[in-house]
Amino acid sequence: MERIEHRACFGGWQDVYRHRSEVLGCDMTVGVYFPPQAAESPCPVLYWLSGLTCTEQNFITKAGAQRYAAEHGIILVAPDTSPRGEGVADADGYDLGKGAGFYLNATREPWAKHYRMYDYIVEELPAWVEADPAASDARAISGHSMGGHGALAIALKNPGRYRSVSAFSPIVAPSQVPWGQKAFAAYLGEDREAWTQYDTVELVKAAREKLPLLVDQGDADEFLDSQLRPQLLQAACEAAGHPLTLRLQPGYDHSYYFIASFIGEHIAHHARALKG
Amino acid sequence: MERIEHRACFGGWQDVYRHRSEVLGCDMTVGVYFPPQAAESPCPVLYWLSGLTCTEQNFITKAGAQRYAAEHGIILVAPDTSPRGEGVADADGYDLGKGAGFYLNATREPWAKHYRMYDYIVEELPAWVEADPAASDARAISGHSMGGHGALAIALKNPGRYRSVSAFSPIVAPSQVPWGQKAFAAYLGEDREAWTQYDTVELVKAAREKLPLLVDQGDADEFLDSQLRPQLLQAACEAAGHPLTLRLQPGYDHSYYFIASFIGEHIAHHARALKG
Repeated sequence: MERIEHRACFGGWQDVYRHRSEVLGCDMTVGVYFPPQAAESPCPVLYWLSGLTCTEQNFITKAGAQRYAAEHGIILVAPDTSPRGEGVADADGYDLGKGAGFYLNATREPWAKHYRMYDYIVEELPAWVEADPAASDARAISGHSMGGHGALAIALKNPGRYRSVSAFSPIVAPSQVPWGQKAFAAYLGEDREAWTQYDTVELVKAAREKLPLLVDQGDADEFLDSQLRPQLLQAACEAAGHPLTLRLQPGYDHSYYFIASFIGEHIAHHARALKG
Repeated sequence: MERIEHRACFGGWQDVYRHRSEVLGCDMTVGVYFPPQAAESPCPVLYWLSGLTCTEQNFITKAGAQRYAAEHGIILVAPDTSPRGEGVADADGYDLGKGAGFYLNATREPWAKHYRMYDYIVEELPAWVEADPAASDARAISGHSMGGHGALAIALKNPGRYRSVSAFSPIVAPSQVPWGQKAFAAYLGEDREAWTQYDTVELVKAAREKLPLLVDQGDADEFLDSQLRPQLLQAACEAAGHPLTLRLQPGYDHSYYFIASFIGEHIAHHARALKG
């Protein structure tokens, strides 16, 4: 493990680490924000999953989340979005391969060897984080777009593991939209039954635990109708009696300006669950 | 004039414009944040001058300033750091030519034709901004590093034009440090008398108006001793009886994480002056 960035920020530290992932079979970079409170006692952890094309840098430089994490005493962990490195399979286009891991475990070649982001996010990364005495094992999870899909699906698949979940502009039904269909066909094969295990709209139907979902979506989002389709989540939650707060934010698009505008409310939401 | 970005942000709009600068003889890009209040009545304007290598993007994507501007009802204007375009002179290295205009009017070739950032910032840019009914003519100015130099020097050279001034990690004595010496020799020639008109430490000595200076400086800044040397400003202000609040912030470096951590306090400082 190597610390490659270490910068004072809102009284705490914005670090970036490179660590070996055995699950992914490559080195991974991770942004970790330690609020001032982490110097005194263990703090709960909010995991942030970024969207297509992102690395660990996008969230830590653009979201302005550290201010709120410092207020509430929450550690922020922002991993990269796929395995990386020369030996890792890739594809043309921004929506498959590197930068587009979709937070699942691939079963098809050439992806199955390295593309196991689900196991990395659910198991290996928290184990690595919680080995630090500054971090408690109280966990929350959030993310944007592909990372919103990841956050919702992972929380629903792991009852009891996360105290709270939220998402910005999530891909709620990857099986029904082009981004998800392309990625799932490549990573999981053409059998659509295998897709349901990573599809939030499908997972809501079978969810044992009724963990409330907080979702913010800009109504000027350029991907709203083609890739995101939050009304599919709304209908699934209504049918299943699953608690959902879906907020359509007027005028907002898919960018980090949207995330920055509401990340404070999301962190307050997670703080209530993590410290309640 | 062309609006090339328009994104909802904290209830207002983060825009980017491309406009023709007659002073610079090229097209320029400018970030403008309109707070929600600007839809109702004219708002005062804070001009932000960025540092070496920056464009208008760095501040608008990384500083998290929009939240505070929305709270206080202040327009943020973040211009590019030099003239741009194919016909504009440039040099090897990041500290001269494009991205390194140093907010002065060059008098030496090949720079004199386009490098007139001083006139652009002091005259042409505010005239362009204030032609918009959303903007009042109440002005404040701030900046980082090379832009901190620009903000301090411009405020001191133009008594009455700015209600308040502040800086992060400014180059306070360009005549005495390598960045400034290289740029001033190229843009202004070897006659050091010509340098004093753009050197904050020299300008403080002769300042008619005692506009208070607010300066934040990280004590872990990698350029502190070689390029920034805030103690030279402190000594000059003490000798001249010029009001200075110089805060050495422990642990902070030269990055936007430092700016993000304290931009809220700077905007509150400007809000008091702009709305008092």
